[in-house]
Amino acid sequence: MALKSWVDSANRHTDFPLENLPYGVFRVGRRGHIGVAIGERILDLHGAFDDGLIAEEACTRETLNELMSRGREAALALRARLMELLADGAAERQKVARHLISRKEAEMLLPCAIGDYTDFYASIQHATNVGSMFRPDNPLLPNYKYVPIGYHGRASSIVISGTPFHRPLGQTRDDATAPPIYGPSKRLDYEMEVGLFIGRGNDLGETIPIDGAESHIFGLCLVNDWSARDIQTWEYQPLGPFLAKNFATTVSPWVVTLDALEPFRVAPYARAEDDPAPLPYLSFDGDRGINLMLEVSIKTPAMTEPMRVSRGNFREMYWTIAQLVAHHGSNGCNLRAGDLLASGTVSGAEKESRGCLLERTWRGTEPLELPNGDRRTFLEDGDEVIMRGWCEKDGLRIGFGECRGTVLPARA
Amino acid sequence: MALKSWVDSANRHTDFPLENLPYGVFRVGRRGHIGVAIGERILDLHGAFDDGLIAEEACTRETLNELMSRGREAALALRARLMELLADGAAERQKVARHLISRKEAEMLLPCAIGDYTDFYASIQHATNVGSMFRPDNPLLPNYKYVPIGYHGRASSIVISGTPFHRPLGQTRDDATAPPIYGPSKRLDYEMEVGLFIGRGNDLGETIPIDGAESHIFGLCLVNDWSARDIQTWEYQPLGPFLAKNFATTVSPWVVTLDALEPFRVAPYARAEDDPAPLPYLSFDGDRGINLMLEVSIKTPAMTEPMRVSRGNFREMYWTIAQLVAHHGSNGCNLRAGDLLASGTVSGAEKESRGCLLERTWRGTEPLELPNGDRRTFLEDGDEVIMRGWCEKDGLRIGFGECRGTVLPARA
Repeated sequence: MALKSWVDSANRHTDFPLENLPYGVFRVGRRGHIGVAIGERILDLHGAFDDGLIAEEACTRETLNELMSRGREAALALRARLMELLADGAAERQKVARHLISRKEAEMLLPCAIGDYTDFYASIQHATNVGSMFRPDNPLLPNYKYVPIGYHGRASSIVISGTPFHRPLGQTRDDATAPPIYGPSKRLDYEMEVGLFIGRGNDLGETIPIDGAESHIFGLCLVNDWSARDIQTWEYQPLGPFLAKNFATTVSPWVVTLDALEPFRVAPYARAEDDPAPLPYLSFDGDRGINLMLEVSIKTPAMTEPMRVSRGNFREMYWTIAQLVAHHGSNGCNLRAGDLLASGTVSGAEKESRGCLLERTWRGTEPLELPNGDRRTFLEDGDEVIMRGWCEKDGLRIGFGECRGTVLPARA
Repeated sequence: MALKSWVDSANRHTDFPLENLPYGVFRVGRRGHIGVAIGERILDLHGAFDDGLIAEEACTRETLNELMSRGREAALALRARLMELLADGAAERQKVARHLISRKEAEMLLPCAIGDYTDFYASIQHATNVGSMFRPDNPLLPNYKYVPIGYHGRASSIVISGTPFHRPLGQTRDDATAPPIYGPSKRLDYEMEVGLFIGRGNDLGETIPIDGAESHIFGLCLVNDWSARDIQTWEYQPLGPFLAKNFATTVSPWVVTLDALEPFRVAPYARAEDDPAPLPYLSFDGDRGINLMLEVSIKTPAMTEPMRVSRGNFREMYWTIAQLVAHHGSNGCNLRAGDLLASGTVSGAEKESRGCLLERTWRGTEPLELPNGDRRTFLEDGDEVIMRGWCEKDGLRIGFGECRGTVLPARA
């Protein structure tokens, strides 16, 4: 049952009801202001602080990093105060209303300075599908069910939803008997992922126990880990993906807190009976999965409306967010507030739930049919990819908004 | 022929004569000050600016990032002015002398905020040696001679020379028929590398042409890319090294500019006759190698003096620094001032020139004999690794100083 806000649009069908209050940063002149989304509006927390409505001074910074670093308790206290200010019947309604701006007119910025970006590979369906294409004889490697496989990505090229980017150039080799060529990628793909932003960090040399791992997570967002499959195939051995990924990664602007997601916790992915149990440092009890629907749509220049191409669910991941964080810190690696950990492509067992074109079109052998008769194996110039994510139950919807990006032609 | 400085110690055998003037950051109270090393002293550039001796305001920042971002021309102008101030007979000698401090007493800090850290694999000897251990049937992969292989590393765990670190914990599996275990790494290694710091960056989507690639390099340092070989073997497929590397990476404190290294440019590594030519975006003319000697020593708790365990030369790298930068930017990935690119382990053809223990002891099968009768296959707790690098010719020595680190026991 949804709570009521005096901000009318928060009570209609929206990603951002009173129970959500995700954090983001929007542009005011040349600065960033921290805000929370509420229906069709944004509450400017910088203004709210200056006006004495909230006491958390970290809300006056230009990024979320300081607020993130203050940990879950500080975030919970702020959340409680914001719910009070925005709930139906709030005494300070008129004062608060002065700090609301239109969400549609706001220009969103990256929510924080991202020190390090790590990309995991936590969907066993994705790993099995991709593995069977890249290594038909050996799809799922022996470490997969023990190690939450991950690798470091590029922080500098992470962009906010709505930022177009150029098709990357790179080395590819189609013909194993000829030398490679350097030119625009011909197999440009998206990857539908969920990102988590680190809140309180750990010191170098200190591990992160699994039981407290979620207390290091400030919140979640959507991530599009754009991938040039032809560059990846040629470059990725033996040290992993590099230029195939680091030309652009798109994140959604609103960081949804774990507190807002609490009603949607579910049993995690059910391991097969003969799968090994996680090692003790990765073992946990309880419903630590998240029932989070994820949807990808494509809109080509010739289409008037986007077409949905996949729908998956984050609960299908082999490794939970707590396991990703605990594993990342298991060697003493220090995580810092604002670090981004992405889940890896979210794919389920059904064809329609596969979270990238490589899988969705099975390496281009099963093209998508678009409503206007066009087909797609990989992305073409001008194509826009739109990702959405939401949790829904008993009349309560906690949404993530959108993660959008458009492919521009390669530069000459 | 070496130039003379009025700082006497710069005229004796030193890594830091007047022609070097490498940049670093040292602690003054709770702040960082930028300085240049000169003999046994450091010239405090913050103080020199405040005193009107230099005009480059970026020298008053707490890190080198802003100075780095100003590009090679600004760095050259500053270098010329500093040489003038420190040369024998300098008119402002007395005023300058007020800003000299003892190098031995200075606490050095990281020279800059490192936004992204990339590690390459540019030594064909290293790649061949390691490949033959990890993939005996397939040591050097088909992409190696076309692609300067690299991957993203961890920025948060880069520490300054002299910082001890704890032996990492992690998952390893010795016995392929048993489950893996989680515990302290038993195969801890160093890797002797050369790092380059980016100066002027490029915008996202813009490539970096090979001819101008060196203008994006501010300077070089030494890097110890500590590696847990047992964790690496188990985790690295299919996405590359992760926890095997990101527990600590040590850099030397002094950034030696390419201008100081200019007299030591030499022909690059001579590719074999049947090796392919680099693709056009990686092709260059001229002597773009660097004749830079690199030495690794080990000092165990039982030893009174360090013992040299390897000596190599950076000119042996298959890919030049310009090729690494051009390749990194070849897909439009944006490099930022302060980013660190490391070369990968520097190994030559001789056994004595192998830059890590994995190669030096051939996976532990040929232990090093220490002077006190002890042996080493991999590093033990308390061992200190000391790296040095220098160029020397016609009485001129341009040195890098030291890159040191000591292994502490794993945390309980």
